[in-house]
Amino acid sequence: MFDPVKVVSDFIRFPSVSTDPAFAEGMLGARDYIANLLKSMGLEVDILDTPLHPLVRARRTGPEDWPHVLIYGHYDVQPADPLELWSSPAFEPEIRNGRLYGRGSADNKGPMMVHIAAAARLLESDPNAPIRFTFLIEGEEEIGSPSFPGILERYKDELKADFVLLSDTLSPSTEQIAITTGLRGLTALEVEVTGPRSDLHSGINGGAVYNPIQALSEILASMHDANNRVTVPGFYDDVIPAGDWERSEIARIGSAEDYAKQLDIEAFHTIDGISPFEATRLMPTLEFNGITGGYQGKGDKTIVPSRASAKITCRLVANQQEEDILNKVVRTLEERCPKGIRMRIHRGKGGPPYQVVPPDRENTPAEQNPHLARAFRAADKAIATHFPNAPLYLREGGSIPIIGQINNILEMDSLMIGMFTPADNLHAPDESFDLKMFERGIAASEQMLRELITAR
Amino acid sequence: MFDPVKVVSDFIRFPSVSTDPAFAEGMLGARDYIANLLKSMGLEVDILDTPLHPLVRARRTGPEDWPHVLIYGHYDVQPADPLELWSSPAFEPEIRNGRLYGRGSADNKGPMMVHIAAAARLLESDPNAPIRFTFLIEGEEEIGSPSFPGILERYKDELKADFVLLSDTLSPSTEQIAITTGLRGLTALEVEVTGPRSDLHSGINGGAVYNPIQALSEILASMHDANNRVTVPGFYDDVIPAGDWERSEIARIGSAEDYAKQLDIEAFHTIDGISPFEATRLMPTLEFNGITGGYQGKGDKTIVPSRASAKITCRLVANQQEEDILNKVVRTLEERCPKGIRMRIHRGKGGPPYQVVPPDRENTPAEQNPHLARAFRAADKAIATHFPNAPLYLREGGSIPIIGQINNILEMDSLMIGMFTPADNLHAPDESFDLKMFERGIAASEQMLRELITAR
Repeated sequence: MFDPVKVVSDFIRFPSVSTDPAFAEGMLGARDYIANLLKSMGLEVDILDTPLHPLVRARRTGPEDWPHVLIYGHYDVQPADPLELWSSPAFEPEIRNGRLYGRGSADNKGPMMVHIAAAARLLESDPNAPIRFTFLIEGEEEIGSPSFPGILERYKDELKADFVLLSDTLSPSTEQIAITTGLRGLTALEVEVTGPRSDLHSGINGGAVYNPIQALSEILASMHDANNRVTVPGFYDDVIPAGDWERSEIARIGSAEDYAKQLDIEAFHTIDGISPFEATRLMPTLEFNGITGGYQGKGDKTIVPSRASAKITCRLVANQQEEDILNKVVRTLEERCPKGIRMRIHRGKGGPPYQVVPPDRENTPAEQNPHLARAFRAADKAIATHFPNAPLYLREGGSIPIIGQINNILEMDSLMIGMFTPADNLHAPDESFDLKMFERGIAASEQMLRELITAR
Repeated sequence: MFDPVKVVSDFIRFPSVSTDPAFAEGMLGARDYIANLLKSMGLEVDILDTPLHPLVRARRTGPEDWPHVLIYGHYDVQPADPLELWSSPAFEPEIRNGRLYGRGSADNKGPMMVHIAAAARLLESDPNAPIRFTFLIEGEEEIGSPSFPGILERYKDELKADFVLLSDTLSPSTEQIAITTGLRGLTALEVEVTGPRSDLHSGINGGAVYNPIQALSEILASMHDANNRVTVPGFYDDVIPAGDWERSEIARIGSAEDYAKQLDIEAFHTIDGISPFEATRLMPTLEFNGITGGYQGKGDKTIVPSRASAKITCRLVANQQEEDILNKVVRTLEERCPKGIRMRIHRGKGGPPYQVVPPDRENTPAEQNPHLARAFRAADKAIATHFPNAPLYLREGGSIPIIGQINNILEMDSLMIGMFTPADNLHAPDESFDLKMFERGIAASEQMLRELITAR
């Protein structure tokens, strides 16, 4: 059996920055490394080509009645800049105080290795274990997984498994694991309003002309009501009410006061009657990400500007449809464009929301996949065994579009076990991975995989 | 008697760009040139020092009962860039089709020379004419006249005259002269709102936090009501109602349809029931000159931004006080800042509004200065004599802060006779001055000055 810490360390040495062509060699090195590792475990490995960075697929096949787990991970990492803020070089892994430092240690090289190591241990101790694996390790996660939906479509039949297992989400701490039961989707647009053809002298013409910044402000201000609900007609139509169990889980997260302190804000601003923890997880949003118009330099420039624009994204929850929400928002903006102002809308890229209800809850779907239910139960037990606390089951506010895409295209659900924590400095200097988390995670994952076999 | 066209041409050859230290020699040349010209007319010339560009003062003194005219002009010009767009070099004056081309020809070297030439003719034909002159020619007009109020304070007693005569405003055409009876004032500020300490992930935190762009949009949208009136309490309190004669004059300007076409807008946006020509002249405004916040690059960035800010200026009309309006706007913004958002306001520079009611109107002040009344009547008659039409009397939407400052500090009114037209390309390449305007203007100004003596 290989040494997981050494293997992750060696993996980190490949600077696999997917966004920067200068790191092509690091990408190739990381891809070969993970392919060879999976091959060494007796899996059939092939490289799935894409226009940019290929995926590594590794399979252990077997009879139809063996459990089949699709394990997802990604071998690409964020850029390490600013390099001077690292205490040790980003691509020279180093262990300090029980943490493995290095770019990619927590996102996602360490967490994905949890399940690879667990599978390796299982197969080493029981070479004939009646279980099927498909590892799918992509190289474009940090740039938005542009090739992923195409791969799902192309290999639709071959990729179908009982469920997806992955660890690319957050847990509160090494003591408290979270299982992520939902992710928000996303839809994006930019709205641009134009008044006069060019900037006008605000003395000569001011008072006669609709100022586009005024018009845009009025339109944006109309998008939320006094209770901070989005005023787009039909916006909330497809939102599924949360289960009571879910609110109980959320109530365990922590105190709103601490959260406010962390954000350095004096007050939260949520839909009336909804806690900040619920607002970010259970409800969709319409958020203004940027606004621009007129003069932005030093001092004054006395103009009526010609144009103003704003970037808007909506976070969606199950069962909202990205295209439907985008259409509704566009229609609302257009309807609210006043006379004398012209509006152009540029549609951006989005991603579907995702939600899975664990078994044995009051709103668990009656037709739930029994393999998935078994996996959730096995994970719960394994985590309770190897960590100090039973897992929290939480929907998250962020988006991982591929999870919704897998659900839409392959009709598979995902078991997302959080293996990094806020202490790990994801996407920042001094990224690190807690080795206690690594050790406990491998033990829990191995137990869970064994349980899947026994429970069958 | 000097040849006015030659004198203006020679004057233009000095590249007197006040904003750029590289043109110090041109500034000095223009200053000396105008000082010597005024000296050659028998006036006592002195240079009034300032921290930047000195003023030229030239005086013809006499008994207290002689009329005393303060003639204002400026010897500095706008930069000539982009030079490649000029048909002939900016500082090499050239006459084409009855127009004198060159930077400063219309702003303000030509128009100021109208009155210098008129005075020169008068003094040449009648060396003992019973009239006093003070010429005050500044060198910082194009950079906002920063030294001017200090000069007014310092020479308060010596500068006091019956009225100010100047030509640094617009007329519709060479056929139709406008006398400007008012200018709007200005007050400026920048408002910045801050939510969370730094940009937040819109997935993890979106829905819990007041988005500063939303807050700013709501605040800005609240600044005008549905009738487009500014909602700042007391904003219109000190606005003096316009005279009926003024609305009749405004009705002569032209068609709103042509104005809309010129601006390339589908509809005007004025206070209900007020025409666009009245809205820009008779009413104050609160205008958004710029807005900025969050991500403004290409594509999307899914953040709740930390900050957003907007630049605001108000155009003021008589008798609004700049400080009072600024305070009211600041107070209103602060009162409308919601919980969870912090606001900072940076106050900018402003200038007072100005209004003069000509004599013989229904709202002419009973205590109007008789010298001023005589000057208005003389100008009206002289313009009607030398131009095809009697003058239009119009307040303008733009601001010339020094006119209000002269009124506030010296308690003098101004007779502003428009000598440039929209055809003159002010502040742009191929600036030119119509020689027909020049000739007619000199004749009218001379007649007006003679009339002042006779009418006494």
